[in-house]
Amino acid sequence: MIRVAVDAMGGDNAPRAEIEGAVRALAAVPGDFRLQLVGRSAAIEAELARHPDVNRERIDIVEAPDVIGMGEKPLASVRRKPKSSIVVGLTLQKGGRSDAFVSAGNTGAVLAASTLLLGLHDGVERASVATLFPTADEPVLVLDGGANVDCSPRELVGFAVLGSVYMRDMLGRPNPSVGLLNVGEEEEKGNAQAREAHQLLKRTPRINYRGNIEGRDILAGHAQHGPIDVVVCDGFVGNVVLKFYESMARLIVRLVKRKAPGILEREDVRDVFRVLDYSEYGGAPLLGVRGVSIICHGASSGNAVKNAIRVAVQAVDAHLSQHIGAEFAGRITAATSA
Amino acid sequence: MIRVAVDAMGGDNAPRAEIEGAVRALAAVPGDFRLQLVGRSAAIEAELARHPDVNRERIDIVEAPDVIGMGEKPLASVRRKPKSSIVVGLTLQKGGRSDAFVSAGNTGAVLAASTLLLGLHDGVERASVATLFPTADEPVLVLDGGANVDCSPRELVGFAVLGSVYMRDMLGRPNPSVGLLNVGEEEEKGNAQAREAHQLLKRTPRINYRGNIEGRDILAGHAQHGPIDVVVCDGFVGNVVLKFYESMARLIVRLVKRKAPGILEREDVRDVFRVLDYSEYGGAPLLGVRGVSIICHGASSGNAVKNAIRVAVQAVDAHLSQHIGAEFAGRITAATSA
Repeated sequence: MIRVAVDAMGGDNAPRAEIEGAVRALAAVPGDFRLQLVGRSAAIEAELARHPDVNRERIDIVEAPDVIGMGEKPLASVRRKPKSSIVVGLTLQKGGRSDAFVSAGNTGAVLAASTLLLGLHDGVERASVATLFPTADEPVLVLDGGANVDCSPRELVGFAVLGSVYMRDMLGRPNPSVGLLNVGEEEEKGNAQAREAHQLLKRTPRINYRGNIEGRDILAGHAQHGPIDVVVCDGFVGNVVLKFYESMARLIVRLVKRKAPGILEREDVRDVFRVLDYSEYGGAPLLGVRGVSIICHGASSGNAVKNAIRVAVQAVDAHLSQHIGAEFAGRITAATSA
Repeated sequence: MIRVAVDAMGGDNAPRAEIEGAVRALAAVPGDFRLQLVGRSAAIEAELARHPDVNRERIDIVEAPDVIGMGEKPLASVRRKPKSSIVVGLTLQKGGRSDAFVSAGNTGAVLAASTLLLGLHDGVERASVATLFPTADEPVLVLDGGANVDCSPRELVGFAVLGSVYMRDMLGRPNPSVGLLNVGEEEEKGNAQAREAHQLLKRTPRINYRGNIEGRDILAGHAQHGPIDVVVCDGFVGNVVLKFYESMARLIVRLVKRKAPGILEREDVRDVFRVLDYSEYGGAPLLGVRGVSIICHGASSGNAVKNAIRVAVQAVDAHLSQHIGAEFAGRITAATSA
C-alpha cells in the first residue's frame, strides 16, 4: 500500500484545492494508495466535510500546526518551523512512515526540506526539479526548472542522467534522447558553462546525448539530430522558459477573447487549450533525493493537485528513486574501477 | 533622403525574399528613402525582373560578389570576405554613403561586421540585439537577444539604457519602464549575475527601473510593480526565450490543425495568429553601434524584410543612433564630474 503525504496547507488556495485534489485523486487515480493529509486538522476536517462521499478509510490526517508562508526564506523557515506541514510531511517519509510527498507550498522550502530530510543519493551533486512541457506530440522533460540557478557543467551532466531515468521509468521511453539547451547547434556555441557541459555530455556513458538544441526545439520535441525527450539547462534558464510557457496559454486566451470570442465555447477549441494546460501534467518531481517529493505550482487547482498525486503514486510504483540511486551508484563504481 | 542598404544575398530565401521585401517596402513604407541592394548584380536584376512595376529610380544596385554563408565563422568570414554583401553594405554606411543596413544573413557575421566597421558609441561596452515581443497589448522589448551569451552585470545595465532610448525614439514611450529578467521578484533572487545587476540597476540614474520580473511577465507586459516596456537579460537567456516564442505559434497551429481544423479558415482566427507573427515586427536592431544595423531572421519572408526596412527608415528618421550616443556621452560626463 503506497502512502502519499499531501501538504494540505501549501498552495495559494490551501486547504481547499489540496483537499479537493486529494478527494479527486482517491476517485480517479489508479493504484493501491492512501493519503496522509498534513496540516491543521480542523481546517482539513472542515474542507473534507464538503466531500461527504469520500472514502475516509483511505485518508489519514496528520496534525501540523505551522505553515511556511510563500514569502518566507526557505532554509531559515524550515529550521524554524519543525511543526510546519512541509517539515512534518517529509519527516514522515524520512522515518519510513510515508512513501511520497506532494506540496504546492513555498517551493524553496520544499526543496530545502526535501534535500535536508531525505538526503541525496550517492553521486548526485544537486537535486533537480524536472518539468514536463506539453508539445504537439509527446511531452518533453526540461530540467532544471528552478532549483539551481547557478550550475556547474558537471551538475548539468547529473541532470541529464536524472532526466533519462525519469523518462524511462515514468514515460516508458526506453532510450531517452538528451539535448543541451543552447543558443545554436554548433559545437562552439554558447556561454562558457554550455560549451563545457557539451564536451562533458559527449563523453558521458549510458545516456543518449544528441548535442546542443535551441529554444525552438523544446516545443517541437525534436532537433536537427532527431527527437528530444530530455532538455538539460541550468535552473535560471529553465525557470524563465517554464514561466514564459505557462503565460503563453493566458496570452492566447486573451487574444482569442478579443478577436474571435465565439470560438472559446467550442469543444474542439477547448481541446487545444487542454493540451497547453500544465495542470494536466501534475507536479514536478524533485529528482535525486532519496525518496519522492513532488512540487506543485503555488496556484495549483484541485485538478493539478490530483495529477501531482498521480505522479507521486506512479513514481513510488515505478521505484523511480531506487532506480536513480542504482544508476548513480553504477556510475561511481564504473568511475572507480576505470 | 534616407539611404537603406539591403543585403540581397543574406537569408535562407535570398535573393528572392530580399528583393520582394525591397519592392514591397518601396510601395508601402512611408518616408523619403531609397534602397541600395547589395549583392550579385545579375541575381538581383533577375529577381527585379519579376517586379516590372517597381520604381527603379529609388533603387541602386551595389555589386558584392561574395556571400558569407550561414555556417561560416563570423569574425573569420568577415575578415576573409571584404567583397561580401555584409561587409560591402556596412562599408557604405561607414563611408557616409548609406544610413542603415538590413540583413537576414549570418547573424554572427552581421554583428561582428557592424561592430568592427561602424564601431560603438563611447561608453557602450557591448552592442545588443533588441527584439520586440508581441503581447496582447503593446509589444515589449527584450534585450539582449543573443549577441552576448556571457554578460557582466555592468553590461546588463548598458542594455537597460539602450532599450530605454529605443522605446522612447521608436515606440514613443516617454518613460519606458525596465525589468530585469529573473527567477523571482524578491531582491535576493537569481544567480550571481542577476543579483549584482539588480543592485546596479537600482542605482542607475535616468532609467525607470522596476526591479526583477519573471518569465511570465514578458507576455503579460506587466509585473507586480506595473507595466514593463524593456526586459533586460543576457543573450543566452534572451535567445532561448526568443526562439521558444517563435516556435509557439507553430505549436498552436499544429494543435489547431489536429483538433479544430475548421477554424483556421476564419478571418478572426487568422487575426489571432497575425499578432503572434514575429515577421510583422521586422528585424531586430543592433543597438549601441554608430549607425543603424537591422538583423533579420534567416528564414525571413518578403514581408519580414519589408518590415525590417520600415524599422531601418524609422530609426534613421528618429535619430536613434545619435540619441544613444548622446545618452551615453551624458552618462560619461555625469560620472566624470561626480
